[in-house]
Amino acid sequence: MRHPETHLTRSVAAPGAALVNGVPGGVISVHDRGLQFGDGVFETIAVQAGLPLCLEAHLQRLQQGCARLCIAVPEHALLQQEAQQLCVPVAAGVLKIIVTRGTGGRGYQPPAAISANRVLTVHERPVYPVAFYREGIRSYVCQRQLAIGSDLAGIKHLNRLEQVLLRQEVAATSCPEGVVTDPDGNVIEGSMSNLFMVKNGKLLTPDLGRAGVCGVVRGAIIKQRHVAGLAIEVKDIKLEELYEAEEVFYCNSVIGVWPVRSIGSIMFNSIDTALEIMRELTHANIIAAV
Amino acid sequence: MRHPETHLTRSVAAPGAALVNGVPGGVISVHDRGLQFGDGVFETIAVQAGLPLCLEAHLQRLQQGCARLCIAVPEHALLQQEAQQLCVPVAAGVLKIIVTRGTGGRGYQPPAAISANRVLTVHERPVYPVAFYREGIRSYVCQRQLAIGSDLAGIKHLNRLEQVLLRQEVAATSCPEGVVTDPDGNVIEGSMSNLFMVKNGKLLTPDLGRAGVCGVVRGAIIKQRHVAGLAIEVKDIKLEELYEAEEVFYCNSVIGVWPVRSIGSIMFNSIDTALEIMRELTHANIIAAV
Repeated sequence: MRHPETHLTRSVAAPGAALVNGVPGGVISVHDRGLQFGDGVFETIAVQAGLPLCLEAHLQRLQQGCARLCIAVPEHALLQQEAQQLCVPVAAGVLKIIVTRGTGGRGYQPPAAISANRVLTVHERPVYPVAFYREGIRSYVCQRQLAIGSDLAGIKHLNRLEQVLLRQEVAATSCPEGVVTDPDGNVIEGSMSNLFMVKNGKLLTPDLGRAGVCGVVRGAIIKQRHVAGLAIEVKDIKLEELYEAEEVFYCNSVIGVWPVRSIGSIMFNSIDTALEIMRELTHANIIAAV
Repeated sequence: MRHPETHLTRSVAAPGAALVNGVPGGVISVHDRGLQFGDGVFETIAVQAGLPLCLEAHLQRLQQGCARLCIAVPEHALLQQEAQQLCVPVAAGVLKIIVTRGTGGRGYQPPAAISANRVLTVHERPVYPVAFYREGIRSYVCQRQLAIGSDLAGIKHLNRLEQVLLRQEVAATSCPEGVVTDPDGNVIEGSMSNLFMVKNGKLLTPDLGRAGVCGVVRGAIIKQRHVAGLAIEVKDIKLEELYEAEEVFYCNSVIGVWPVRSIGSIMFNSIDTALEIMRELTHANIIAAV
């Protein structure tokens, strides 16, 4: 089964528009370290009525990622202004911001003098079946697992081959998203999203200290400390614990919230908390309205 | 201390020359998946007297990497011809070949119709102090470790942030190369090279099934089955075992062979086997003459 996102998109005013270091254009040097080594970070941001949602939270994460990788992050005001400028004509879309360490150096070691490159692009927003949001999705546990133990855990960096391969695995199933684990049997996230579960009056999400991407929607939920009346806890979650959840949902900036109806043969009886959280996040302009 | 490679280079006839999909030029689409996700593979090849060394072995590894990542590899004859063409004016240099999955797709999942992009560039060859080769180098054990357990182990793919960070760590020391381990205490490789050790009449090199890059020079040594009169064994090597080696050396296509004089406070009394292997590999045109 082909994934719906390859078929349906909401039209945008300026799909394909791009700014490279502030200049309209669609190319970059082949010596850019993003191409050479995946040496950079990125953000994927929902755009609604001309506005990039949670722009400040995204720019903050971009800055934190650059700090961890010792990349000189472009000026905040510059990124903010370019992001807003590019989104003005966009009714509903996706803004992507890439920041690479810069251009040059044949080997892994960056040259002493280097300045970051920034690439901002606007894309169409994928449209998923309304049933994904109202009735929840079928899901499963991915065969491919994430590597653990690197210092890169949590960062939304450009080394995303694991996700590219995971998305291809998921696309070959009848599920729009899959649970990704690590070799120790810990649940980490979805192939393109973060994961939450409800159990005994708590909202739980995996600790991402050893693998995974700390998503902005996940961060916004955690920051609220209570959501849909539930206390939030970040902890290691084994697959067996996930199977005993009362509810499970995926979230990210583009899909919003997808309640989960089943994981393999395990059925969940409720999606009510996920629906309530979806309403709260939409109301707070953290995710786009479906 | 700054690393010598940032200061000294051997001049080439055409440094910076580039072919993008066969056309001279230095830019690529910002939608190329190499930039977007590190979705591709690469080769780094020593060039001597106009010839890329071990070109067939490099193209074979490129093809194997593409196969594992389900990237449609460009035609062998095409890559071969472009590589040879670009190297003709190069007396001593480095050829880099990048193959990405292609252009397009905002998300991790590649579009159904996509064709690979190829980028060939020629660079100056770094010149290292002759003492590195004649007397061996000082080395140490890197603090940063490699993640383990992904399906990407062994592939020379474009997700190289670990190596970028490792090279920066090494550059801040007085050692030109460091031993990289995994979280389980296994020796994997150097930050930009493979590693061998001599013990009890055997040449040992780490198994790279869970992490690391299967280098072409490493592969050429293993393929010979006997080198410098020693049988070769590929196996898990703990750090304690490395400390008990009679000799240790690093190798890759650009540096050739670097005998190791010490790892931290551990001294090795001999570099004779490494020197003999260096001679054999140079004679076989597997590495460039120093």
